Amino acid sequence: MQERAIETRRNILEAAAKVFDERGFQAATIADVTAEAEVTKGALYFHFPSKEALAEGVLREQDGQFPTPERASRLQQLVDTVMVQAYRLETDCMTRAGVRLTLDQRASNIDRKGPFERWADTCRELLEAGQRQGEVLPHVVPADTAEVLVGAFAGIQAMSQAYSNYADLSARVGALLRHVLPSVAHAPVLVSLDLSERRGEKVSAELLALHGEEPQRGRPVTVG
Amino acid sequence: MQERAIETRRNILEAAAKVFDERGFQAATIADVTAEAEVTKGALYFHFPSKEALAEGVLREQDGQFPTPERASRLQQLVDTVMVQAYRLETDCMTRAGVRLTLDQRASNIDRKGPFERWADTCRELLEAGQRQGEVLPHVVPADTAEVLVGAFAGIQAMSQAYSNYADLSARVGALLRHVLPSVAHAPVLVSLDLSERRGEKVSAELLALHGEEPQRGRPVTVG
Repeated sequence: MQERAIETRRNILEAAAKVFDERGFQAATIADVTAEAEVTKGALYFHFPSKEALAEGVLREQDGQFPTPERASRLQQLVDTVMVQAYRLETDCMTRAGVRLTLDQRASNIDRKGPFERWADTCRELLEAGQRQGEVLPHVVPADTAEVLVGAFAGIQAMSQAYSNYADLSARVGALLRHVLPSVAHAPVLVSLDLSERRGEKVSAELLALHGEEPQRGRPVTVG
Repeated sequence: MQERAIETRRNILEAAAKVFDERGFQAATIADVTAEAEVTKGALYFHFPSKEALAEGVLREQDGQFPTPERASRLQQLVDTVMVQAYRLETDCMTRAGVRLTLDQRASNIDRKGPFERWADTCRELLEAGQRQGEVLPHVVPADTAEVLVGAFAGIQAMSQAYSNYADLSARVGALLRHVLPSVAHAPVLVSLDLSERRGEKVSAELLALHGEEPQRGRPVTVG
């Protein structure tokens, strides 16, 4: 794709994320997105033939994010992955739109399982690696623990959104990890983990320094 | 209220639950509900002056459900409460509509925190009682654990809905409890808990026998 076409496509996706985030999938219209992006209907349809295609575009943007840095402790890497996602939800409109689309039971024509599956895969792989190196208890079934974590995270972000518009998300996610990890990890690993509320912000800054620029596509927004 | 008015009100709420469950709050219209309930607009407005009032009516119906029977083990009572809710989600349209309204980030004019708070209160009280009688570990903060459980449950039901239309909900909720309870309970209590998949159905049958009729208002539906 030409540079200008890439720019237009990104601009449309950012506008779509904002509209889906504010209005939800069902209430959002193509006209809302063209108005927000300041593009013609023709330009939009060139990149995205339908509202479903737009939603899938927003969902796929989540995959373009850089993974969290490798850690000697795979469980710390798992914690970092979860805490960075909490921080992105607090600060990034594209991430919020992706999560809301995934949880939107009305958006039934789009593949809502995909993001759950990708997240569960990432968590499962880290738990498997942790088990191989003896951090994770032998009775743990990584796939089961991964699905508990991903499902629980999805609900805790919804609760945080309802209670505080995400202001307490990092604290709630920290509480989830403190409740689940003792069933999963050896005690000496547990005490060495950094589960503090600022962990997500810290690792995001580390990613920024590593990769030069924010990997996220959405416009940063202030959530109060 | 006269018996007939009570009957009409219940009929309207059941129709509203069905419509909210199928279409979501934002897309649902008063006309959908009057058509489903086979009542006039005037009859509906007599009981519910707005769509928001209807949604709040559906949410309040959740409170009319009988609590799970008292158990010597407060943690078993907590497990029963959670497993019965999973079973209701699988089988009862009114419960599903209530949960979806609570998680619907578009339904911003209605009080979505209420159901989270009531559920968290119930869990907190059982954890406090469990702590008083030595079942719950001394370091546990019942309010924190309650909010983790309620938030996690909300997400796990969404994941189960996306994956299997609730067919695997009891299994997923059992996995959540097996991951969280070891951080909360003394080991001898843990091994005595019934966390089996059929627990919700079993306790629901017990409630039915105790109270003579299903406490739920919604029409039972088959979820496949």
